[in-house]
Amino acid sequence: MPSSPPSWVQALKPSGPQGSELLANERAQSNIAVNALAELLHTREKLERQEQLVAVLSSDKVFDKSQSQSLGRVERIQRALAKAKRIRQLAVEGQWSLEKYHAAHALLGEPTPYALHASMFLVTLREQCNAEQKKLFLEPAENYQIIGCYAQTELGHGSNVRGLETTATWNPEDKTFTLHSPSLTASKWWIGSLGRTANYAVVMAQLFIGGKNYGPHPFVVQIRDLETHQPLENVYVGDIGPKFGYNTMDNGFLLFNKLKIPHISMLARFSQVDPETSKYVRPALPTLVYGTMTWVRSNIVLDAGSVLAHGVTIATRYCAVRRQFQDRDADKNAGETQVLNYKMVQVRLLPLLASMYALHFTGRGMMKLYEENQSRLSTSSQSGQDSRSPGPEELRAGADLLADLHATSCGLKALASTTAGEGLEICRRACGGHGYSSYSGIGPHYSDYLPTLTWEGDNYMLTQQVARYLLKAARAVLAGKGTGNDTSQIMQTYLARKDKGASFDILGIDQDIVAAFAWRTAHLTFEALKHRDVEKRSWNSLLVDFWRLSTAHSQYLVVKNFYEAVSSPELTSSVDGPTADVLRKLFRLYCLYTLEREATEFFSSGAVTVRQITLTRTKAVLSLLDEIRPHAVSLVDAWKIPDWVLDSSLGRSDGQVYEDLFRRASQENPVNDLIFDPYPWNEAVLKKPLSKL
Amino acid sequence: MPSSPPSWVQALKPSGPQGSELLANERAQSNIAVNALAELLHTREKLERQEQLVAVLSSDKVFDKSQSQSLGRVERIQRALAKAKRIRQLAVEGQWSLEKYHAAHALLGEPTPYALHASMFLVTLREQCNAEQKKLFLEPAENYQIIGCYAQTELGHGSNVRGLETTATWNPEDKTFTLHSPSLTASKWWIGSLGRTANYAVVMAQLFIGGKNYGPHPFVVQIRDLETHQPLENVYVGDIGPKFGYNTMDNGFLLFNKLKIPHISMLARFSQVDPETSKYVRPALPTLVYGTMTWVRSNIVLDAGSVLAHGVTIATRYCAVRRQFQDRDADKNAGETQVLNYKMVQVRLLPLLASMYALHFTGRGMMKLYEENQSRLSTSSQSGQDSRSPGPEELRAGADLLADLHATSCGLKALASTTAGEGLEICRRACGGHGYSSYSGIGPHYSDYLPTLTWEGDNYMLTQQVARYLLKAARAVLAGKGTGNDTSQIMQTYLARKDKGASFDILGIDQDIVAAFAWRTAHLTFEALKHRDVEKRSWNSLLVDFWRLSTAHSQYLVVKNFYEAVSSPELTSSVDGPTADVLRKLFRLYCLYTLEREATEFFSSGAVTVRQITLTRTKAVLSLLDEIRPHAVSLVDAWKIPDWVLDSSLGRSDGQVYEDLFRRASQENPVNDLIFDPYPWNEAVLKKPLSKL
Repeated sequence: MPSSPPSWVQALKPSGPQGSELLANERAQSNIAVNALAELLHTREKLERQEQLVAVLSSDKVFDKSQSQSLGRVERIQRALAKAKRIRQLAVEGQWSLEKYHAAHALLGEPTPYALHASMFLVTLREQCNAEQKKLFLEPAENYQIIGCYAQTELGHGSNVRGLETTATWNPEDKTFTLHSPSLTASKWWIGSLGRTANYAVVMAQLFIGGKNYGPHPFVVQIRDLETHQPLENVYVGDIGPKFGYNTMDNGFLLFNKLKIPHISMLARFSQVDPETSKYVRPALPTLVYGTMTWVRSNIVLDAGSVLAHGVTIATRYCAVRRQFQDRDADKNAGETQVLNYKMVQVRLLPLLASMYALHFTGRGMMKLYEENQSRLSTSSQSGQDSRSPGPEELRAGADLLADLHATSCGLKALASTTAGEGLEICRRACGGHGYSSYSGIGPHYSDYLPTLTWEGDNYMLTQQVARYLLKAARAVLAGKGTGNDTSQIMQTYLARKDKGASFDILGIDQDIVAAFAWRTAHLTFEALKHRDVEKRSWNSLLVDFWRLSTAHSQYLVVKNFYEAVSSPELTSSVDGPTADVLRKLFRLYCLYTLEREATEFFSSGAVTVRQITLTRTKAVLSLLDEIRPHAVSLVDAWKIPDWVLDSSLGRSDGQVYEDLFRRASQENPVNDLIFDPYPWNEAVLKKPLSKL
Repeated sequence: MPSSPPSWVQALKPSGPQGSELLANERAQSNIAVNALAELLHTREKLERQEQLVAVLSSDKVFDKSQSQSLGRVERIQRALAKAKRIRQLAVEGQWSLEKYHAAHALLGEPTPYALHASMFLVTLREQCNAEQKKLFLEPAENYQIIGCYAQTELGHGSNVRGLETTATWNPEDKTFTLHSPSLTASKWWIGSLGRTANYAVVMAQLFIGGKNYGPHPFVVQIRDLETHQPLENVYVGDIGPKFGYNTMDNGFLLFNKLKIPHISMLARFSQVDPETSKYVRPALPTLVYGTMTWVRSNIVLDAGSVLAHGVTIATRYCAVRRQFQDRDADKNAGETQVLNYKMVQVRLLPLLASMYALHFTGRGMMKLYEENQSRLSTSSQSGQDSRSPGPEELRAGADLLADLHATSCGLKALASTTAGEGLEICRRACGGHGYSSYSGIGPHYSDYLPTLTWEGDNYMLTQQVARYLLKAARAVLAGKGTGNDTSQIMQTYLARKDKGASFDILGIDQDIVAAFAWRTAHLTFEALKHRDVEKRSWNSLLVDFWRLSTAHSQYLVVKNFYEAVSSPELTSSVDGPTADVLRKLFRLYCLYTLEREATEFFSSGAVTVRQITLTRTKAVLSLLDEIRPHAVSLVDAWKIPDWVLDSSLGRSDGQVYEDLFRRASQENPVNDLIFDPYPWNEAVLKKPLSKL
């Protein structure tokens, strides 16, 4: 690493008011209760755990981040595996709970090669093993004696699971399956932890019995030798190469050449092949297997708020420290203005600040819904084990609930991850030139987050499922068979009031804002239904409408969840009046900013008038920006993201932006060890070491 | 590198119709004249030069790209310098023109440490040296005996050039300047080619004479020893560290500790300090120094079309090869559909396809305007040299022209680079999961392009200059002093017709579309003028309106330039009827898609009716997508981006997407040389080499 700068450089300080002073002023001018708000968001317990974990991680050299963005992939991935191993060691030594173990991983700020073992592999085994398989696979996996991954996606098939090409053919003669990859596109691809790490995989393959295809099923397969770690015979496996991000993860490929695996390999909790009769045993609750995906999506919604908070924290603090130009209308002797005072900066950052709160509260709502559903299903599944099979009514109610949760989770996953991913890039640009430096801490975070917009259902593909659900619900309502749930109700309300018109007071009454979003969803649903059922338009020609509809519905759900959170009794018992007041302003900003961006739909549905939209744009949003501005830094402080986690010069909680950028560039940057030979006629790129000159 | 795969793997092919067949079908179904269109876009001469250069570059190992995305920064930047040197050697050996030399650099697909020397350093010296300085600085710089950079931006000041802190103080006693960095934020920062490469810099510093500040001026300064390449005394210089992209460039920092430099160092063509009297000599044409920036911005607009074409070429070809799901309304026995047939994919890609053509023709129009202006100014400047000073009328006309070109270039730079940058990310996502692989070729390109949205004027900041210009023009029109240029005319037309209403036939008459965009600009301008001049609203409160106004005006300019290109006689003489017809459809798609996205402004300005917007969305845009779809692959083929330049498995012109992804992952990926030890209780990350096990 480079030597220290000369003393005349060390004596230099940033000019003008120091970053530390500027942030202190910001904190002094806001009266919101930062700590109480932090506990409302995260609970005191989790905040304490976070503090404790950061103390452990930041003091251990193996977790050092200073070189991450300069190193190549070969070194980065080795360091990531070392980090994963160390966390596992710490967890075993300290007898951490599973939750704490996952929390430590999340604080690292980069994926590790253990990630898919610790999530999808173990979750799948827990949910889908029978008792014998638990002993054989789950127990050693939980002890890390075998390391696994979840191999579903193929080179030629991502979204379309039914199109997977890998086959598992039942051999009645020796009671085995033959796993086979019939083509190059059948290669498993993108599988996290597979490339170099895993020695086992859950492989999704088309189950063939007696020439008949029963669709994709999961098989547990050993792929590497447990001692030498070399691939087994008839297995071809490796890493798929560099990516836009996620380069600390060994996403892999996997091909099988007629590999025989025993009967026990097929995960048997929900469906089986009877080894004696070679008969396929159907799953008792076919929908239950989608539970994992719904759970994963619900988690994505919850995380999206935190992901966005990462970027908004950095950008807000930096825009409070950075000063550029004078205000044109200000006194000529005034100093330069904090960038955060410019309306063009506020209008980009503060709606995102509102979004991160909105998504957080929505994520909470989703998780609650998911847990309620899980407990109902487990009751129903237990009754199945007691050999009392659930009645048709019970099954139907379960299916209805699952359909609703499935559609909700699809739409919200798409909206939340798009908002968070695109929001991070907006934050990065709001930091001006320095946002482009890796030391901003936003870029690497953004690159690693982007896959979330594609995996667990591509964000565009998912919107079809939401639309399909809404069309079905609308048909039921028109046929007088509404289920009475919220979706049915907003459609009934719309139909009842359609001819009288809406006349919502969106600028005066919060509940009317929620109603306007509901109205727009219902309007777009019935429009789409008319196109499909009356005009008989092709599904393909309606995909764009469906995408809009899904977005509209998901925005309604966010607005509704946010409204419930800011008007709940929990809020007023947790934080004081001024804090609750600012949260309600964030609610209004989220709603009105969204409404104005989607003005055409609101206007043409008759939810609001053109005059209301103009007032929203020219008055209401600007006023809210003014009112929220003084609290911006406190509102990101309340998210309590530790400096070690932010890993950002720009977002430092102490405001020492320029000192830190300079220190990292001059002291932690390996490129400054190079001495270039700059002349084109010299073939060599580097000078000899100085002593030899 | 890993060994070859076993024979059973080598025997595998992708399933279903092969990529090569699918692309062949695409090409067969379009009747447009690909080669004629290519020549219209690029000229035959440039296409031949490109072919020749690619042959040279792709056959030289120094330009190998296969490891770029896997290597760390230290190795990547050394390789980039080696590439830059080799290109320079080839240029000298082959006596290349300057244009050919730049073309070779552009084909590399990544910046090199010579980039700022070859552009801003040499351009500045050429434009701003007097005769003596040309001999002293420009000649050795052109021979690469000194390597330079352009040091303007500072750690604390990017956008606000007047706020720069570096000082150059005139010392009359020994006729020198003292260059000094009074604070840490005064450090030059982000300066390309400075970090490790340059031994000279053009430094922008506040000129002080006798205690008075004359504003920022350029000084040529040696910063490193020409032999040892070590920094000179009282100079502290280095690389600023890793970035989101541009990691093959050594962006640098630079601090001075009261460094004395001679009188000759101040670039003297436009302003000087008289060494005898210590008097400041004012620039003859103060506006001329902005010429470089305007030139750079015009180039950005021209490039934006090509940048976007890179992403659209990749995504369009891949979406023609990738098949996923059946069309819901199709025969159950039909195979999976090409992704490009889905309306949700078309609506994302085809408007970008239209945009790349729109930006290309707009960029051409800009360059023409720039060159016209340059020749007028050089006439006027020559007359200055002939010691006939230009009269006030002449000066005013020149200033008017410059103001128009300046505003146009600001607005279009912002619109074009935002469209290209965000467009690349849309292309990446349209490729689904594989878009995230570095082998897609989009991600690295996107990361390297993003600074364009910030440099040469932050895209948000620039919009204020456009608004200021339009407000001024509107005031002149209201005062009956319109200049008769296009901007004046569209405002006069609007005022004359405002009360009668617009009633444009946007769905029938192309010229009416252009008129509708002009109408919207004029409407927004007069609205903003009312807010500022009548309602006396603060500048800050109007920044969001100004940004919208600038975007609207720039979209109008694009629409106008595109319309002129597709209705010009040059078009019909260059390409046949069907090709011209498809280009006119691209024009309509660009316009109507844009109009629909910004529907609220068009509707509330009265340019169009709500009914027209609904028809645009539900009919016109969908029809255009249907009509352009068969030509999509040919329209990207016509851009003629060589495969070596695309460097993309997904965008290969032969359609062998899956074969290439697999080959690169298994054969060119250094991570596959690692053998992990996966167990957490082992501290080591790698197994010993196999032979030692």
